[in-house]
Amino acid sequence: MTLTILGCYSATPRTFNNPTAQLLETKKHLFLIDCGEGTQVALRKSKVKFARVKQVYISHLHGDHFYGLIGLISTFQLLGREAELHIYGPVGIKEIILLQLKLGKARTSFPLYFHELSSTTSEVLFEDESITVKTIPLNHRVYTNGFLFKEKAGDRKLDITKAEALHIDKSYYRKLKAGADVVNKKGKTIANSEVTFPPEPPTSYAYCSDTVYSPEIVPLIQGVSALYHEATFLKQHLHLCEKTKHSTAKQAAAIAKAAQVGKLILGHYSTRYNGLEDFKTEAQTVFPNTELADDYKVFQF
Amino acid sequence: MTLTILGCYSATPRTFNNPTAQLLETKKHLFLIDCGEGTQVALRKSKVKFARVKQVYISHLHGDHFYGLIGLISTFQLLGREAELHIYGPVGIKEIILLQLKLGKARTSFPLYFHELSSTTSEVLFEDESITVKTIPLNHRVYTNGFLFKEKAGDRKLDITKAEALHIDKSYYRKLKAGADVVNKKGKTIANSEVTFPPEPPTSYAYCSDTVYSPEIVPLIQGVSALYHEATFLKQHLHLCEKTKHSTAKQAAAIAKAAQVGKLILGHYSTRYNGLEDFKTEAQTVFPNTELADDYKVFQF
Repeated sequence: MTLTILGCYSATPRTFNNPTAQLLETKKHLFLIDCGEGTQVALRKSKVKFARVKQVYISHLHGDHFYGLIGLISTFQLLGREAELHIYGPVGIKEIILLQLKLGKARTSFPLYFHELSSTTSEVLFEDESITVKTIPLNHRVYTNGFLFKEKAGDRKLDITKAEALHIDKSYYRKLKAGADVVNKKGKTIANSEVTFPPEPPTSYAYCSDTVYSPEIVPLIQGVSALYHEATFLKQHLHLCEKTKHSTAKQAAAIAKAAQVGKLILGHYSTRYNGLEDFKTEAQTVFPNTELADDYKVFQF
Repeated sequence: MTLTILGCYSATPRTFNNPTAQLLETKKHLFLIDCGEGTQVALRKSKVKFARVKQVYISHLHGDHFYGLIGLISTFQLLGREAELHIYGPVGIKEIILLQLKLGKARTSFPLYFHELSSTTSEVLFEDESITVKTIPLNHRVYTNGFLFKEKAGDRKLDITKAEALHIDKSYYRKLKAGADVVNKKGKTIANSEVTFPPEPPTSYAYCSDTVYSPEIVPLIQGVSALYHEATFLKQHLHLCEKTKHSTAKQAAAIAKAAQVGKLILGHYSTRYNGLEDFKTEAQTVFPNTELADDYKVFQF
């Protein structure tokens, strides 16, 4: 997976800091996660082909996570987009978008689908042969979901030389890759494990923003390849977390450690701090494999 | 008056072009005119003190003229603004803003007033001792107003040396500045014109975007110091004007000429063209004192 940070600062867009938006590229998809004001400009700067984005996931209805969505949809329309677009987000997102399109007497030139969310338990939002997308219920001042993107295990890998040596007919190769045993040309049953290897372990990504420290999400995100977790504050402002329903860098690291994730990526920094290094330092006391998100930074995992 | 162009391109924000927003500074006020996506970032780049903006005028409900308003209001709130804010714009603007604040469970920390417009004849929106703001009904695909900002004539200027020589008591100076005749210490009536000069002619600014060519606005904007008129197209695309309800640069110039304005400022360029010089050249064949708006450009008049 390739994750491009389009914006990772909290609260308000500033001269050089974008509010939250991310692009997640998987084998078959390009997902947009959150869409703060100015996201369409950040997409242009990242030279992304707009038509490739077919699904947008909105975590919650605070402005720094969705004020850019109506502008993006309007731009899609002005560009004559034809591909369908699916919006996943809290109840209310449809009313906000459609009201603005209606008052502007605009009709979209492409099919626009809203999938409004209200469940407080994890649910599957999208699934195909390559990936499953699930909600991660979070605890913030308004109804909020994180999102879990989990690629499916691929086919088993076939040792063709060995399969030939064992006189297996080529028409059985597909069955072998799917994990089945087969009978060879001489009538002998060949165990699948004799001619195949397990596939690469599937990659997964969990996006968790915004949220107060919530250990209850740990089972859901157990062992993900990468976790993006909000870290609005440093520990000196821990007392603000409960009131504002945000986390510190150290709390994000505690979640990463408990869930045994591959890599922790921090973001959603409060703009009150000068520089980001303290976020990394504080988190690494608990979870060493921590990296800092920053606008236009790219992560591969 | 000082006019700062925060954005002047049509349709969609691009990497280096902002959609429409302008700041008009008069003796006593700082008016924000239209507020496309990203306007709050443009305001920051212009180093404007946000609290000084107390009135926002929205011409119409197409995204490139108002999608930045909700973000600006949210930012005002996050900054703990206390000063009141007045929004003037078409019916619907209040519903759009309040719906988004409600779904984000946000309450503004400052008094927020909406003045929704639906009249198709010119009306006065704001008036104090220094200025009058009026609508200029325009003809676009949706209900649209331009705005006329007209400073009031100041006091007459007093020739103090002459007033002293004519034995006028100082307590009458105010009356003289207001234009009245007075009686001097010797009981003689002194004509106002003997001791005062006329004030500077009042400055005025007309903002007209978006609109198809509409000569009916000429009487309303007659003799303004500066006219900003949209020029979405060059003459080669004149055939698109009627359908899209936009103007060419030459049509903008025809309006400027008929209204005998001091200066014409063009803007709202379609992003289909490379460079802006042709807009100026075409307009100047009709109205020589034409200038091009561009993002962050400042005009004084």
